[in-house]
Amino acid sequence: MIYLDNAATTIKKPDAVYDAVLDAMKHCGNSGRGASDASLDASRKIYEARMCLAEFFGGDDAARLVFTANATEALNIAIHGLFEPGEHVITTQLEHNSVLRPLYMQRERGVGVDIVPCSDAGIKRGIISPSDIEALIRPDTKAIVCTHASNLTGNVVDIKSIGQIARKYNLLFIVDASQTAGVLPINIREMNIDVLCFTGHKGLMGPQGTGGLYVGERADIKPFKSGGTGVLSFLENQPMELPTRLEAGTLNGPGIAGLLTGVMELEKIGLDNIYAKEHELMQAFMGKIKTIPGIRIYGDFDVLSDNGLHCAIVSVNIADMDSAEVSDILMNEYGIATRSGIHCAPLMHKFFGTQKQGMVRFSFSYYNTVDEINEAAEALMQIAALR
Amino acid sequence: MIYLDNAATTIKKPDAVYDAVLDAMKHCGNSGRGASDASLDASRKIYEARMCLAEFFGGDDAARLVFTANATEALNIAIHGLFEPGEHVITTQLEHNSVLRPLYMQRERGVGVDIVPCSDAGIKRGIISPSDIEALIRPDTKAIVCTHASNLTGNVVDIKSIGQIARKYNLLFIVDASQTAGVLPINIREMNIDVLCFTGHKGLMGPQGTGGLYVGERADIKPFKSGGTGVLSFLENQPMELPTRLEAGTLNGPGIAGLLTGVMELEKIGLDNIYAKEHELMQAFMGKIKTIPGIRIYGDFDVLSDNGLHCAIVSVNIADMDSAEVSDILMNEYGIATRSGIHCAPLMHKFFGTQKQGMVRFSFSYYNTVDEINEAAEALMQIAALR
Repeated sequence: MIYLDNAATTIKKPDAVYDAVLDAMKHCGNSGRGASDASLDASRKIYEARMCLAEFFGGDDAARLVFTANATEALNIAIHGLFEPGEHVITTQLEHNSVLRPLYMQRERGVGVDIVPCSDAGIKRGIISPSDIEALIRPDTKAIVCTHASNLTGNVVDIKSIGQIARKYNLLFIVDASQTAGVLPINIREMNIDVLCFTGHKGLMGPQGTGGLYVGERADIKPFKSGGTGVLSFLENQPMELPTRLEAGTLNGPGIAGLLTGVMELEKIGLDNIYAKEHELMQAFMGKIKTIPGIRIYGDFDVLSDNGLHCAIVSVNIADMDSAEVSDILMNEYGIATRSGIHCAPLMHKFFGTQKQGMVRFSFSYYNTVDEINEAAEALMQIAALR
Repeated sequence: MIYLDNAATTIKKPDAVYDAVLDAMKHCGNSGRGASDASLDASRKIYEARMCLAEFFGGDDAARLVFTANATEALNIAIHGLFEPGEHVITTQLEHNSVLRPLYMQRERGVGVDIVPCSDAGIKRGIISPSDIEALIRPDTKAIVCTHASNLTGNVVDIKSIGQIARKYNLLFIVDASQTAGVLPINIREMNIDVLCFTGHKGLMGPQGTGGLYVGERADIKPFKSGGTGVLSFLENQPMELPTRLEAGTLNGPGIAGLLTGVMELEKIGLDNIYAKEHELMQAFMGKIKTIPGIRIYGDFDVLSDNGLHCAIVSVNIADMDSAEVSDILMNEYGIATRSGIHCAPLMHKFFGTQKQGMVRFSFSYYNTVDEINEAAEALMQIAALR
């Protein structure tokens, strides 16, 4: 199988990640529960992971790095823990349902939600303009919630400019880095990010079941879950100290050990090299498919000519063929895994008018090869020719 | 190291569990996301796990088996998703903070919460009497939330009788099976359980980062998290179908694959054999330590003479020695891992008057040996003699 659905999850991880998960399963106890060697080994490993990830994102306090089961949980914690009825939040048309649905829930509670549309209605490339966000800021605006990159088009959002706007108006800035962590550089200080939500099992090369958020000093997030914390057990409320405040119950120790190792491996390779490799694969693919008769390629690839950033995602359709049909042929006839349908990004499909057709998404990882990409492009050509 | 903290997490799992985790990490995609072989492999594995666990607990609908990151999340989902201000809930003094703290949060919202005290104030063995629960039922009572066994004493609660009471008054019955799933038989139909919350990483022999709940037909739980579901992406709300309704974001695929394998291995061994082995270890330990000068053993071991059930947990103190000191000596001088302190069960320590001293908890697993138990008992004797 040629696996080109890395925006959903990276299957191929560095070998050291598998070893780390297994080692933690076999030797680590329950972190923060008691002072046995097994428990302390788990606690130390998790603390090491907190330090590593906090530093990776430019944070200086390991205690503010909170682990969750996935990015969705991190986004729920942030969105449900920061807003009160009567407050106003701005988000974008690019967002995944993991941002939109929690915000819709808050809207039912009386939180105002504005969704910034893509600014390029004519050309339809799916770009968000920071100035469009600024134009929606009101006196009651509390926060901007924004993805770092579209999981559908791979378009990268100008997070730094939006962060500057957020700080200028004293707003909280919550960023969904699901598609970018481990590929694009992220620095919460330089980008004025108050809450950074990430997943562990995509670019960071960790296992599924991991993710988290870095909680900046300006963000005062109410506990979402409560329960056992291993400390301060006589308190009736969840302890207010981070990370305990936002972490109840047993953490995914082996998963976090794997995530730590994934990030350490990334640092050895270097994010620049990862981005360059993924970029090369995407460019090779684009070069081959753009002339296929009837193909439509979504997203803004013009940025590439200006050395702008773009995630290694290419979503396409072939004339009016159903995206599921194309994905199925790719899988069944060519052994190529892609993702069809809506990709949990309903507003983007409305923007592109592809609610029914969906799109066929190709997403590449550092571990894909040029040969694989060539095979995929060739397969797409043959499918288009069959029509 | 002799690991006797299995009530916190079982480190030793069947070898097949490690293999299953690794295999899923290397070959499975993101379940429910697309129709590639990798994604379908993940979906099939997770569906198999749903079926296996639903059946294991006596449920007949795999869709009602919802996966979570741990038992705490399952309990938060149930407790925060079922009650409205003005309703009344009954729980017990035995509960872990994963039950108590969510209920305290609901109390702040206006939900009435009554905590049934242990019925044996004189002898102090920490028993809950079903009739004491029945006596607290009021016209506005909505549910009984109860652990299947104390994580501190190992005392088993008469869940079947409480379930009958719950059904008699048409109440919901929510059970925390964290200490019993995989050791004691649980049947949601025979026990009239409406929501069964479980963890994967203790008796069920799965990895950390797994757990879940079986949602009976009488329980209508509101979504707790919302986000990407891979289906029905145009809905603004979390889809109402189970399990999607209570599962947002990427599941812990490798963890769930390991949990499935753990349960399959348990079924091969047979719960009867597991309970008998753990029981034998506990009895051997009790036989050796009960005559140690100055020892206090907590919980109800009289049930054993009537062939009553008891989890393989023995919590003790040696005269007035601080429990952390005893645990530390056990670890550092003898290489024996136990758990001191409060064990996230504050009301039980209040009951026993051990808020400051804590207790030293020994908890056994099927994979412990009689030799290990003898060493632990011998160590405790020597520590007591040192005083």
